[in-house]
Amino acid sequence: MELFGTAGVRGRVEERVTPELALAVGRAVAAEARELEAGGGTDEPTGPPEIVLARDGRVSGPAIAAATEAGLASGGAKVSRAGRLPTPALAHASRGRYGVMLTASHNPPSDNGIKLFRDGVEFDRELELAVEARVEAEEPPAAWDAWTEPDRVDTLDGYLADVREYATEFEADADDAGDADDGDSLDGLRIAVDCGNGMSAPATPTVLRELGATVVTLNGNVDGHFPGRGSKPTPETLRDLRAFVADANEGVDDPGRDGEGYAFGIGHDGDADRIVVVDANGEVVHEDTVLAILAERYVRTSAADDPVVVTTPNASGRIDERVREAGGRVERVRLGALHEGIAAVRAEADAKDTEVVFAAEPWKHVHTAFGGWIDGVCSAAVMAVLVATEGLESLRDPVTERPYRKVSVDCPDDRKERVMARLTERLPAAFEDATVDTDHGVRLEFPDASWTLVRPSGTEPYVRVYAESDAVDELVESVREVVEAAVAEAES
Amino acid sequence: MELFGTAGVRGRVEERVTPELALAVGRAVAAEARELEAGGGTDEPTGPPEIVLARDGRVSGPAIAAATEAGLASGGAKVSRAGRLPTPALAHASRGRYGVMLTASHNPPSDNGIKLFRDGVEFDRELELAVEARVEAEEPPAAWDAWTEPDRVDTLDGYLADVREYATEFEADADDAGDADDGDSLDGLRIAVDCGNGMSAPATPTVLRELGATVVTLNGNVDGHFPGRGSKPTPETLRDLRAFVADANEGVDDPGRDGEGYAFGIGHDGDADRIVVVDANGEVVHEDTVLAILAERYVRTSAADDPVVVTTPNASGRIDERVREAGGRVERVRLGALHEGIAAVRAEADAKDTEVVFAAEPWKHVHTAFGGWIDGVCSAAVMAVLVATEGLESLRDPVTERPYRKVSVDCPDDRKERVMARLTERLPAAFEDATVDTDHGVRLEFPDASWTLVRPSGTEPYVRVYAESDAVDELVESVREVVEAAVAEAES
Amino acid sequence: MELFGTAGVRGRVEERVTPELALAVGRAVAAEARELEAGGGTDEPTGPPEIVLARDGRVSGPAIAAATEAGLASGGAKVSRAGRLPTPALAHASRGRYGVMLTASHNPPSDNGIKLFRDGVEFDRELELAVEARVEAEEPPAAWDAWTEPDRVDTLDGYLADVREYATEFEADADDAGDADDGDSLDGLRIAVDCGNGMSAPATPTVLRELGATVVTLNGNVDGHFPGRGSKPTPETLRDLRAFVADANEGVDDPGRDGEGYAFGIGHDGDADRIVVVDANGEVVHEDTVLAILAERYVRTSAADDPVVVTTPNASGRIDERVREAGGRVERVRLGALHEGIAAVRAEADAKDTEVVFAAEPWKHVHTAFGGWIDGVCSAAVMAVLVATEGLESLRDPVTERPYRKVSVDCPDDRKERVMARLTERLPAAFEDATVDTDHGVRLEFPDASWTLVRPSGTEPYVRVYAESDAVDELVESVREVVEAAVAEAES
Amino acid sequence: MELFGTAGVRGRVEERVTPELALAVGRAVAAEARELEAGGGTDEPTGPPEIVLARDGRVSGPAIAAATEAGLASGGAKVSRAGRLPTPALAHASRGRYGVMLTASHNPPSDNGIKLFRDGVEFDRELELAVEARVEAEEPPAAWDAWTEPDRVDTLDGYLADVREYATEFEADADDAGDADDGDSLDGLRIAVDCGNGMSAPATPTVLRELGATVVTLNGNVDGHFPGRGSKPTPETLRDLRAFVADANEGVDDPGRDGEGYAFGIGHDGDADRIVVVDANGEVVHEDTVLAILAERYVRTSAADDPVVVTTPNASGRIDERVREAGGRVERVRLGALHEGIAAVRAEADAKDTEVVFAAEPWKHVHTAFGGWIDGVCSAAVMAVLVATEGLESLRDPVTERPYRKVSVDCPDDRKERVMARLTERLPAAFEDATVDTDHGVRLEFPDASWTLVRPSGTEPYVRVYAESDAVDELVESVREVVEAAVAEAES
Repeated sequence: MELFGTAGVRGRVEERVTPELALAVGRAVAAEARELEAGGGTDEPTGPPEIVLARDGRVSGPAIAAATEAGLASGGAKVSRAGRLPTPALAHASRGRYGVMLTASHNPPSDNGIKLFRDGVEFDRELELAVEARVEAEEPPAAWDAWTEPDRVDTLDGYLADVREYATEFEADADDAGDADDGDSLDGLRIAVDCGNGMSAPATPTVLRELGATVVTLNGNVDGHFPGRGSKPTPETLRDLRAFVADANEGVDDPGRDGEGYAFGIGHDGDADRIVVVDANGEVVHEDTVLAILAERYVRTSAADDPVVVTTPNASGRIDERVREAGGRVERVRLGALHEGIAAVRAEADAKDTEVVFAAEPWKHVHTAFGGWIDGVCSAAVMAVLVATEGLESLRDPVTERPYRKVSVDCPDDRKERVMARLTERLPAAFEDATVDTDHGVRLEFPDASWTLVRPSGTEPYVRVYAESDAVDELVESVREVVEAAVAEAES
Repeated sequence: MELFGTAGVRGRVEERVTPELALAVGRAVAAEARELEAGGGTDEPTGPPEIVLARDGRVSGPAIAAATEAGLASGGAKVSRAGRLPTPALAHASRGRYGVMLTASHNPPSDNGIKLFRDGVEFDRELELAVEARVEAEEPPAAWDAWTEPDRVDTLDGYLADVREYATEFEADADDAGDADDGDSLDGLRIAVDCGNGMSAPATPTVLRELGATVVTLNGNVDGHFPGRGSKPTPETLRDLRAFVADANEGVDDPGRDGEGYAFGIGHDGDADRIVVVDANGEVVHEDTVLAILAERYVRTSAADDPVVVTTPNASGRIDERVREAGGRVERVRLGALHEGIAAVRAEADAKDTEVVFAAEPWKHVHTAFGGWIDGVCSAAVMAVLVATEGLESLRDPVTERPYRKVSVDCPDDRKERVMARLTERLPAAFEDATVDTDHGVRLEFPDASWTLVRPSGTEPYVRVYAESDAVDELVESVREVVEAAVAEAES
Repeated sequence: MELFGTAGVRGRVEERVTPELALAVGRAVAAEARELEAGGGTDEPTGPPEIVLARDGRVSGPAIAAATEAGLASGGAKVSRAGRLPTPALAHASRGRYGVMLTASHNPPSDNGIKLFRDGVEFDRELELAVEARVEAEEPPAAWDAWTEPDRVDTLDGYLADVREYATEFEADADDAGDADDGDSLDGLRIAVDCGNGMSAPATPTVLRELGATVVTLNGNVDGHFPGRGSKPTPETLRDLRAFVADANEGVDDPGRDGEGYAFGIGHDGDADRIVVVDANGEVVHEDTVLAILAERYVRTSAADDPVVVTTPNASGRIDERVREAGGRVERVRLGALHEGIAAVRAEADAKDTEVVFAAEPWKHVHTAFGGWIDGVCSAAVMAVLVATEGLESLRDPVTERPYRKVSVDCPDDRKERVMARLTERLPAAFEDATVDTDHGVRLEFPDASWTLVRPSGTEPYVRVYAESDAVDELVESVREVVEAAVAEAES
Repeated sequence: MELFGTAGVRGRVEERVTPELALAVGRAVAAEARELEAGGGTDEPTGPPEIVLARDGRVSGPAIAAATEAGLASGGAKVSRAGRLPTPALAHASRGRYGVMLTASHNPPSDNGIKLFRDGVEFDRELELAVEARVEAEEPPAAWDAWTEPDRVDTLDGYLADVREYATEFEADADDAGDADDGDSLDGLRIAVDCGNGMSAPATPTVLRELGATVVTLNGNVDGHFPGRGSKPTPETLRDLRAFVADANEGVDDPGRDGEGYAFGIGHDGDADRIVVVDANGEVVHEDTVLAILAERYVRTSAADDPVVVTTPNASGRIDERVREAGGRVERVRLGALHEGIAAVRAEADAKDTEVVFAAEPWKHVHTAFGGWIDGVCSAAVMAVLVATEGLESLRDPVTERPYRKVSVDCPDDRKERVMARLTERLPAAFEDATVDTDHGVRLEFPDASWTLVRPSGTEPYVRVYAESDAVDELVESVREVVEAAVAEAES
């Protein structure tokens, strides 16, 4: 059984991510951490590795956390119990030690999951495989006298203080960089936040309030049943927030100022790694546009010679446009592996003054100067500063928002390899004017900045086609034909 | 200095309800509790009295709680630390022991306050005076070896379970009593709750969800700055909730059913003793109408020969109408003293089958069969059951909602006594067709169920005039004239 | 695999009582408790069953507790986390609910174990089998929305207060019953307590001090490595305590009085269910003598017509002597099943005024008027009161302490049944003057109060022979011959 | 009123160190820390100063801690609640932040006290005066929105790990430096520790056990009544420990080895800053001898050119002898101000390679390489290593233990100044062969290493005379005459 998918360990708690599995994973992580700390050397480590353990607000959280703690402690790691936290706060707390976050992010309430961190960064594939192997091999308990007693830690306040400080410094930079008159500020800005009954509730509204905003929340009570809306923030699940913002802004001149209306809205998922931005009309700002805004800003304010933005193959060309415009470059890495992409760019940096200034996949942002993890709370603070100083519309203005589509073509799992091999030849042949990149599927980029990506789904019997173009329908149809032909031929 | 006002001890934390005062009150309460437990007898009590200590979500809460705990523990009482709770949950937890609740209810965030409970009921005036005297006399610490170490208690889940059970039984009764077809139920009913960043957030939405409702919250994140709205729920502070409900219900046939709109809205204050009901049009249902609905229901379903509803002089005649109609009677007690009114009725009950079935002042309800304290969470659950089974409009229908006004006439504090003495004669003389009641101010009731109440303010230099009548303006003006004349004459 | 032995679940934590097993047992207990609470009826229970969870001071305790909690919570039971407790304090806390105690009692530090309680009494055999069956069948998790979040409880202070109150009442009774002049008291009595680094440390010394004694402890720091001495209190492991008491009392007239020496010493095991008494000379008082002293006292002060003492077959005839002398009767039950013996006597009580006034096996005492569990802390308090009022020597004086021996005869497990069948005939034939009881093995009692018991070991390949007689060696040898012959014949 | 004496704030909790005072001191400390963090500059500090708060095991601890927390939190400092700790563990936890320790050290159980730390070092006189001034001026609360909520921290395990690591490194050094054959080790060494029911109980025995010793404790249960013995460890209060060690070693060849007897004994005070060493015969090793042993060792193993030992005027010349012998020098500072002495030496160090290798007053040791606080737990670990590697007798051997006496001469407070002025002239005149030091009282040192010190008591109406000499009685008498004459003359 493959333990870690693109989203880590995740699934229903009665069948897949059971306490039994959590215990086994905890044990494996402890053993792996002990081996890592001992190093290859002959020195005895001075004590057990320290692992901060947190969970989101799910109903199954306390039981899964207890099981994980049992595994960690009987595996010889020292547990610091951090209670309920947003995922980015746990990542922040894992700096200088290890972290285990129990969350199924935006999955339904019946699910839970496990995310592993080391020194503020998610476990890379190699480490995940090592843990997987130990789980498979049923890692036994450590000797009884290496078992540990947990300590408690309260880390949320420290995290929020750090986000606040980062956003304050960002604000100073933004003022310098932007065209807006100085002296604009967050004070008084009215923002509506839909926490979706998740772990952003004790974080985002507090940070924004401390930065000077006036915040009204929807679904700000933490409830693992997600009663208020689906935990994944989409235009549909954010219906209430969008209507709330739109209605409140009706007839208001300067929404979010002078105590009237809301400048914008924010929607989070269950563990606050994801953020969705809603404009003053109640419309969702496209996730790639948010990426483009942040990416451009980070490149523009960077002092590095070679500022790099890391993103994923499915992310829009509008990001590349804005980054190039600002004088940086874009690197792509497979979905769910931003941390590995950041590491790869850094590894290649050599003497050159290369700096990863931002890394993101749709809805998920790594503010690299703040920390190496996806952080929706930090995004909320940074976006609030940007909106306050420049206004959402002027931020959005330079971004070209071409039509975007995503379709799935049936393809049995056992044909995927052959299909992709064929497409690696067929697609470039079919679209001769396109630049080709075959690192993660087949990605074609056209002179007018249109692009398409074809890749096999990691979890379902499909080949996915993504495209962004002023003539997106035609592009998708042409690609689909090539793909379907390849699938048909691949039938042995 | 008078310590306890009509709302208990309450005021700014930098000047009035300081940690120093909290320590002194804690000490005094411990000493008083020790004396009470020792009884008049010669027996040594077997141990220190147990006192549950909780606070609402105010910023000053932790410091005031620590100070109170220091006073209680050094006064020889055993403290059970209950953390953050709604006031009714603390009252519930105080059954069989003592309770101290740190809350300034709906006051601004700069304030805090202290409420004292014994066995589920607020301290009566006599006990308050005893505490006040000890504070004045600077109650010294107990002997060092009588000091105590606090225990921790988690009481919220138990409270919520009890509310849920009570509401479920109430639902069964409601089904029997109501005209609605059986089988109606809370399942699926959509309710919007504005927690005002107060302590209802971890209570009301949870209870309603567990009873089967779909709940969306506004300001459901607990934040002692009350960033979302003023903590006192009024038509103005509930602007967002009212707009949210009204907009969502636009064009919806059966609001709150079939996944569309909201059947009604609920607004709480900071500590969840108070409840405001908003109808499907986003209008606040008058607080006295809510009282009348509940009062009638409790009287109607009571098995007692003599069901009594206790209320306050400022409460509307519509309550009396509904209670009489249902076969009960109303008793009035001074504002802020419902618990004393309940005790008084019970004391007079004798052999007769008298039962206090409900006690309430505007916005505050004591569900006597559930417990002897004001409980806005329980009100929310009970109202949800009633709305689900019968619909808000049909509940409201039988209640006559006459126009209501309240005005304040200037009157220096030192004249109040003389003014009221005069008015006790003048007002009956001026309104000969009215029945007179001078127990709490002067209350006149007219044959057409109009009424007026004149009473001196306990905290400000005014005489208050309340009136409810189809011709309320004329009535108020006539009364005001008499009052102003009396004030003028009282100038020595 | 048989889960529950005579000592409950117990074994090494790396192999047998692992976190994995603890999780499985927790799940099973939760499921069983849910079924019990639901009853046979059709009614839904109002909420999850409540289970108090505690552990002793073992190094493996936190991990095993976390695993058990994970099992309980994912099985749908509500956990009240009580932290570290003596076993009797957990039993006390389980009244009105369920209790799970994680302890391996006096086993080495590498072991742990699980003891289950319902309403203050250990699970009977039937309930244990039900749990065992569920563990075997791998009880699945409850539906995710039935999982629970634990509450915390601090129960030690309440337990200690109750022990103190019980001992105080006992003291009053003792004064009435004893010959000692009234007015004697615990005040000032010096007692040495060897806690063996176990959970008696925060209990017994505190209770004795609060009762007025001056207590010096050995190994009073809780340490799961049991560094000070073996956890099982025996004459050998109590070497330090015995020397300490003996040396301190050298040349002292009235040891334990006037600030000099120690009146007696107390040794506990790791979880304080067991107690050993050391006299002023540093000699261990035989465990059966302690039983006889307490049994006689409880019978003598009982107001019942038919006071009964429950004990086990291996307990000495001196108990029977003292109980008979005091006007009561003795009932025997198999080892490790005192709670079942108590229940059986009560079940047979009918209209007759029968009362179980005490139940005990060597080192373990159930003070039935205090509670239905084995309680070494309560024994310490009661013994202190008795020693203070009457002196240890005068308590011991009336007890006849005949020589006692216990030997093991080799017998393969598969022959045990046949051997015991044979012995049931042979032994009575061989000792014609003896009264025979075959309820739990074969027990012969002689006219001079000598007795012998032959029973198969439950855990090892032996038949055990116990005997107590002024001529114990001869008696044992005669019995051994009969047993060895039976074993030899049983070879198929 | 002078708040801080030589032992910080200390006194009876009903009258002097009341919760009221603790609240006031907490408030003052918070305000002072805020001012310190803000610096003189114009920058806003980024957040509230962090203050770790702990208490020893006294009965009054919880109430005093709650009051202090109330003061700190309402003063605008962030409290990290550390619960019960030994004083050195709190000092260790205060590194990088502030610390408040609630302890009255070895005072009776009716007392409590307050010790303040900044970054691992006690507040110096200047800071104490600043706090005192704020208490006097009744420092008001901070603005309500600067009040804080406490975090919890568990710091004991981290402290113990650091002590263990330090002692292990020390052991390596000791092996190099000592004459003992390498390979000697702590393993198996038997040590008796009398914790006096104080906070050393969860610390010293654990550290020693983890270092490989076998530890038996007396009075190892924490109990704020100090039932086992007086909290101040003296030859009298350590009577039980001394007898226990002596008796156990009777007839044992190599006490503390091969599972027999005890190599030495350790006695601590209530908060574990103080240590007393008992030898294998049950005799207390003179506190100055312990100082001399440690001082010499630290000087000998120092790599610095100018190793300095800081001590107090009342400390014996045997320290100077051993330090000089090892190539270092001694600096003296007034009693209770070791931290100021360390700072002074460091301030004067300039470019020269000066290092304070050890600082101590009788019973209290600052292991400067470990941290800048008095640490009896660290002393216990270091002494155990030394005893294990070299044996207590060979450590003690080179130290010349001259007879020592201390007498008090009556002297009213108002004469003290005049008396000391006179003695500054008279004493040198009376003892012409002595070297004179008048920095802290008048200290005379004679050619044969005899010495005497005359100083006024800080707390009582006495002038103290200390002397150490082979002819101590004569020396004391000569000095006393001079002092008495000076007192008589000073009568105005």
